[in-house]
Amino acid sequence: MPTLSVFVDVPLAQKLEGRLLKTYKQDNCPQKMFLAYRACMTNEGQLWVSPVVHKIRLQIVQDPSLNHEYMPVMGMKSFIQASLELLFGKHSRVISENRVGGVHTIGDSGAFRLAAQFLKTWRGASQIVYIISSQNELHGLVFQDMGFTVCEYSFWDSRQLCMSPNMLLDVVEQAPHGCIFVIGNIDNFKMTQHQWVKLMATMKSKQIFPFFDIPYQGLSTGDLEEDTKFLQYFVSGGFEFFCNQSLSNNFGIYDEGVAILVVVAFNNQLLLCALSQLMNFALALWLNPPTMGARIITTILCNPALQEAWKQNLKEVVENIMLIKEKVKEKLRLLGTPGSWNHITDQKGTHGYLGLDSQQVDYLVKKKHIYIPKNGRINFTCINACNIDYVTESINEAVLLTKDSEK
Amino acid sequence: MPTLSVFVDVPLAQKLEGRLLKTYKQDNCPQKMFLAYRACMTNEGQLWVSPVVHKIRLQIVQDPSLNHEYMPVMGMKSFIQASLELLFGKHSRVISENRVGGVHTIGDSGAFRLAAQFLKTWRGASQIVYIISSQNELHGLVFQDMGFTVCEYSFWDSRQLCMSPNMLLDVVEQAPHGCIFVIGNIDNFKMTQHQWVKLMATMKSKQIFPFFDIPYQGLSTGDLEEDTKFLQYFVSGGFEFFCNQSLSNNFGIYDEGVAILVVVAFNNQLLLCALSQLMNFALALWLNPPTMGARIITTILCNPALQEAWKQNLKEVVENIMLIKEKVKEKLRLLGTPGSWNHITDQKGTHGYLGLDSQQVDYLVKKKHIYIPKNGRINFTCINACNIDYVTESINEAVLLTKDSEK
Repeated sequence: MPTLSVFVDVPLAQKLEGRLLKTYKQDNCPQKMFLAYRACMTNEGQLWVSPVVHKIRLQIVQDPSLNHEYMPVMGMKSFIQASLELLFGKHSRVISENRVGGVHTIGDSGAFRLAAQFLKTWRGASQIVYIISSQNELHGLVFQDMGFTVCEYSFWDSRQLCMSPNMLLDVVEQAPHGCIFVIGNIDNFKMTQHQWVKLMATMKSKQIFPFFDIPYQGLSTGDLEEDTKFLQYFVSGGFEFFCNQSLSNNFGIYDEGVAILVVVAFNNQLLLCALSQLMNFALALWLNPPTMGARIITTILCNPALQEAWKQNLKEVVENIMLIKEKVKEKLRLLGTPGSWNHITDQKGTHGYLGLDSQQVDYLVKKKHIYIPKNGRINFTCINACNIDYVTESINEAVLLTKDSEK
Repeated sequence: MPTLSVFVDVPLAQKLEGRLLKTYKQDNCPQKMFLAYRACMTNEGQLWVSPVVHKIRLQIVQDPSLNHEYMPVMGMKSFIQASLELLFGKHSRVISENRVGGVHTIGDSGAFRLAAQFLKTWRGASQIVYIISSQNELHGLVFQDMGFTVCEYSFWDSRQLCMSPNMLLDVVEQAPHGCIFVIGNIDNFKMTQHQWVKLMATMKSKQIFPFFDIPYQGLSTGDLEEDTKFLQYFVSGGFEFFCNQSLSNNFGIYDEGVAILVVVAFNNQLLLCALSQLMNFALALWLNPPTMGARIITTILCNPALQEAWKQNLKEVVENIMLIKEKVKEKLRLLGTPGSWNHITDQKGTHGYLGLDSQQVDYLVKKKHIYIPKNGRINFTCINACNIDYVTESINEAVLLTKDSEK
């Protein structure tokens, strides 16, 4: 009798990531383009890498004093320290009070994974997580995989064409007591003081645990401090929270995916307890985080001249993003595309909503081979001098045709 | 009323890793030494790095054609292919039949973690894992963390002072039906044809799933093929299995911890199903594996001259290990230490049992500040010209004193 395979009951899994990218790759049309890359692109259509990084990579590799020992489980201490100072400011309260710490994590999912395991173990009853829809494909999966119930939310108001603080407030008000709230893209809000107070009061009264996702610090406004100002509100508001501080995008080291799971606690003792548990989880997840990415970042952040050069790089990128958005808006105006396109320039950062409905998105993907997600949120740095005419003309066509079909 | 901390119920976790190393670090005695590092050391007491690696690291960093894009979830294809050929041989059956594959994993625990998640989901009833005692501290934890029952075994016969095939056979015979058997250090066995046949027959009849741990390919005998010959037996014996192929030690890139979770299935279709599920788990574990380590290894393995140079490096290391062991044995003989010390040179590889009892180990740690694990299994490359006299004299003392106290 032949032996039965161990894998006999294992079905072919549906590929969970990158369906859009996969379809794009299979498309043979020469004009096809993909506008949803996670990474920042240059005007030449290449992945952006901070010019400082190239130099430092070479320097690290030539450093004879570096030994290539296993990293401790928590990761590189100097890397964690420098990154936390970047996030909160060197002289911030949480740092001087010794109540913020972090664990060096891996790839784009590592920090979420580690956090999910901690929250699953120590957060008891409520196992509900709210995740912004644009991040749900990647990060929702991590929580689902750990047995959490994942609720998707959005605060893009597709009628008003803006990020709506009221939608955010509604979601928080309806969210169940004690849930975990993954908050990304919050720097794109224009919230009044009153709205901030209301948001935090609601979260506090419902014991909602905030989990900030910060994958693009410095690439939103070009000002590192400005991009994470909202964290200070939550610190001042007396919150404890987690934060995924990803540093792949703002340094342009996508292939060395490195991040930190940041923990803010009320005091040092609570922090140390939380970190000690996280460390044991990290031990069973990967044991030693790879170091190349962390070394590059630490070298840059710990040298004032290099840090300044890197900040300048970020400013240039953001200026370029603003220029692209201006051009897209201008081209659409010149084409006479119906509607106001101010929402394009009103949004900050690499990614933003085009403000198209699903029918228009469908038209772009299927008829024009321009691959964008269903919600119409694209990476504006994917648009450059070579493709801007095709993109804007196609958007114009999509809007006109779908307007016609409505009649 | 002050808000209660989210972390109020989180106790300080006991540090699970490196208790021995921690005590060593806290010891102020100038003569202290640690003989249990995982990594291979040079005669100068430095971490060994394959000399080829330095050159290649520099070459990679200077390569302008490399873009630094996110890796796919499965990892670097060329890296996986080259590593599988290293493990099984380019023209091996499993490779030509397209029924071996792998997922690029991270750190020293990554492959175990990924495998544990797969086995937990798809292996149904039996959630029992057998792990060799020397690896239990690190790898057992991963399985425990995933809810498996972990049983520790050893096949070091402390009376006969040798690795005992009969002890292995006994463990397998007593293991429950359908369990998972993590097998490390099996290249150190002197098994007869008859014993191999018996081992495989028992495992097959009990549907025991083999999970090979291969962290030192090439560092056991100095011959890469010889070190993994036993895998061919299991392939020929009609087994499906997993394998942790860690490549940090044999290239000396400990800080870029890189490994592959290898899957051997009966046919390509079964393999693809298993890999597709593993890919989705990897997505939720880290998403993108860091690349530096994989790039170094791929560059070396795909260039025949570099590969040859690296193989030569491994041979030199192994010759050096043999020399150290010979010297230790010789010194003990000259000191007149009671007992035969042939078991030291009979064992292959960097790590091996000293053949001391727990009282003797205790003496070395507490009185002589020589830190070795309770089972007396040390890393022989930690012994060098500077410390060999102190080590052997201390062993001699330990043996004499504990012999005396027995009388």
